[in-house]
Amino acid sequence: MALPTPQQVQASMQRYVELVDAGDIDGILALYAEDATVEDPVGQAPFRGIGAIGEFYRQGLGRMKVSAALTGPVRATHNGCGAMPFRVDLTWDGRACSLQVIDVMEFDEQGLIRSMKAFWSEVNLEPR
Amino acid sequence: MALPTPQQVQASMQRYVELVDAGDIDGILALYAEDATVEDPVGQAPFRGIGAIGEFYRQGLGRMKVSAALTGPVRATHNGCGAMPFRVDLTWDGRACSLQVIDVMEFDEQGLIRSMKAFWSEVNLEPR
Repeated sequence: MALPTPQQVQASMQRYVELVDAGDIDGILALYAEDATVEDPVGQAPFRGIGAIGEFYRQGLGRMKVSAALTGPVRATHNGCGAMPFRVDLTWDGRACSLQVIDVMEFDEQGLIRSMKAFWSEVNLEPR
Repeated sequence: MALPTPQQVQASMQRYVELVDAGDIDGILALYAEDATVEDPVGQAPFRGIGAIGEFYRQGLGRMKVSAALTGPVRATHNGCGAMPFRVDLTWDGRACSLQVIDVMEFDEQGLIRSMKAFWSEVNLEPR
């Protein structure tokens, strides 16, 4: 098989945001390769492997109601990579907030995510 | 010296877009470390070193009038990295177009860019 096309990268990343919005952790994990890595936020030690990644989503997304939406198009490359801007609405310390994130993903030849890096820090958190 | 703070990363990346908008190639190059790398678009062989990077900007930005603007906030991390969505208005094959790009940058302890990766392909080019 070949790396996904830019259009396929766009579709997969759009789907990822829809699944985060729906809180569908099984659906999210089905997008990841078994040996994938997740670094969220960038600068933290990465989670390695689908087991650790599942735990990460259950600890975060599984414990709070969030909504998520793209704030611009998915930028997609010819070597199976993409980057997208999105907004996550959540409750942080009891306050309604929006977090502006950019996720960068690399896909493998099965069309699965082999790495995800999320760029954000508290400077990207604002009251809502 | 220490890595730049998230606020400093935001300021430098905002400045970068302003310099691209102004077509100020010397100003852009002053933001880069001597041994920096530029991969634009991601998937192409990277340019290595300030000489090759200068040539890249002169070949591109030096030959056409573009305008550039952020389309959302710079996402910045605590390990000297950032990602930002922006739009470049340009003329492509004689037609007025907008290109939606996400740049990811890593900064060094002098606050200079040590790597830049630009995520885009023709799927991110639209008529204007």
